[in-house]
Order: sequence, then C-alpha cells, then structure tokens
Amino acid sequence: MFGQIDHIGVAVEDLDDALDLYRDALGMRQQHRERLESQGVEAALVGVGDGHVELLEPLSPESNVGRFLARRGPGLHHVAYRTADIESAIGAVRAAGLDMIDEQPRGGVQGSRVAFVHPRATGGVLTELVEPAH
Amino acid sequence: MFGQIDHIGVAVEDLDDALDLYRDALGMRQQHRERLESQGVEAALVGVGDGHVELLEPLSPESNVGRFLARRGPGLHHVAYRTADIESAIGAVRAAGLDMIDEQPRGGVQGSRVAFVHPRATGGVLTELVEPAH
Repeated sequence: MFGQIDHIGVAVEDLDDALDLYRDALGMRQQHRERLESQGVEAALVGVGDGHVELLEPLSPESNVGRFLARRGPGLHHVAYRTADIESAIGAVRAAGLDMIDEQPRGGVQGSRVAFVHPRATGGVLTELVEPAH
Repeated sequence: MFGQIDHIGVAVEDLDDALDLYRDALGMRQQHRERLESQGVEAALVGVGDGHVELLEPLSPESNVGRFLARRGPGLHHVAYRTADIESAIGAVRAAGLDMIDEQPRGGVQGSRVAFVHPRATGGVLTELVEPAH
C-alpha cells in the first residue's frame, strides 16, 4: 500500500529558527517554502535522501498546529507515507476498519494530494497518506 | 551528513496490538522483533520501502518509553536518520553546537550503532542517528 516514509511533520514555533537548525546545523537542503492557508500553516521542506522533513509554523493559535503547540509544545506532529494512488490507499485503510479524517484527498504542499488517518485509529500517531504531484 | 530517514519510533502500550495495526491493517511487513534490556523496551520493526517503523513497548514504567507513555500517551516517540559513519555524524552535530544524549555510539536493534541528540537541541524532536550493521 505504501512505498516509503515520505516525510515527518514537525510543529515549530518559528520557521526561520527551525530552518537554521535543519539546514545549517543538520546539513539538510531547503527544498520549498509555502503558505498553506487551507491548513493554517506556513510550511518549509528540507530534504533528506528521497524524503523530507516538513516544518510547520501555525498561522494562528486556532489552527490544528497552533492547538498542537499549545497542548504539547514543539515536536513531532505526524508521519506521512507515500502512495502512488491515494484513492486506493484510502480505500484499503477504510477496508481495514480504520477511520479517516479525510475520506477524500485534499491539496498538500507542492501540488501533492493528501489524506489523514484519524490518530485514534493508529495508536495516537497522526498518519498522512501522500500522493506526490506527477 | 544523513542518507535518509531510517525509521520513526512509536511508543505503544501493547506490541501485539501494534503489530496487528501496522502489519495486518496497514500492510507493512514484519522484519524483526527483539528485547533490548539496555533500552528498557521490546521492539518490533515493520518495513516500509527502504525504511521502517520501530514499535516500542516499554519493559517497565520507569524506562524512558514507559515514562513517555505515562506523560504523553502512545504516539510518535522519535525519528532516526541513517548515516554511514556515526562517529563523523556525532562530531558534525556537536560541531554545530547541538547537545548529544550519547556522545559515544551504543548498540541499537539488529546490531546497529545509534546515538541520540538531545531534544532540547532539536526543537523538542527526539532525534536518533543510526549506522546500520554492515
């Protein structure tokens, strides 16, 4: 169903500070930066191998990532697995009895299509399915 | 410095239930299961692409993962980046001014050598460096 770990998502207080850490201290290459109003975040991607780290700064305290930061502080927010066919992956997850947050794909960064599995279905791990742009 | 995301670590209450989820519902292949007394966990690896998910059930409430579960509940515990030379990676991380939990590598699952960066140095993300067994 899944090809590989596509990325981890990290909730950060300040995107520029986080880029200093991942790019300058950990030596990853910055790939992309995008404001995603629909998800309430400004996101930056830093590459590591064929995957990446998605750094997420909330646009408001009421956004999902804003509430995550208030509740748990900065840190690991989600994991995303890559799939070539997100409709099939959603179907397989639902057929296994797991609840989706998104039963239909929505737009992610860099033109990808994404859907989140409900964390209560996956042992508290917020799990994203991502089909990269072709 | 890093080749790719090697794995994510997930804290779980019950390893068999977690294997039912990752193997049977999400379709990942079980690769390995090992009791690591030195880290206070029983670990199971399920493969996804060239990486894996490391499921961690604590051997006692006083272990690191046991305390994590008591404090935050089950969920994402750490991320690990693969390196071909862990001594060099530790040196580079320290040279960038980041604190290590392990200044010398120690034994991880499947004969790997691992070292953790202190999460206060990495924005709350517990970050592991891993050199796989050759």
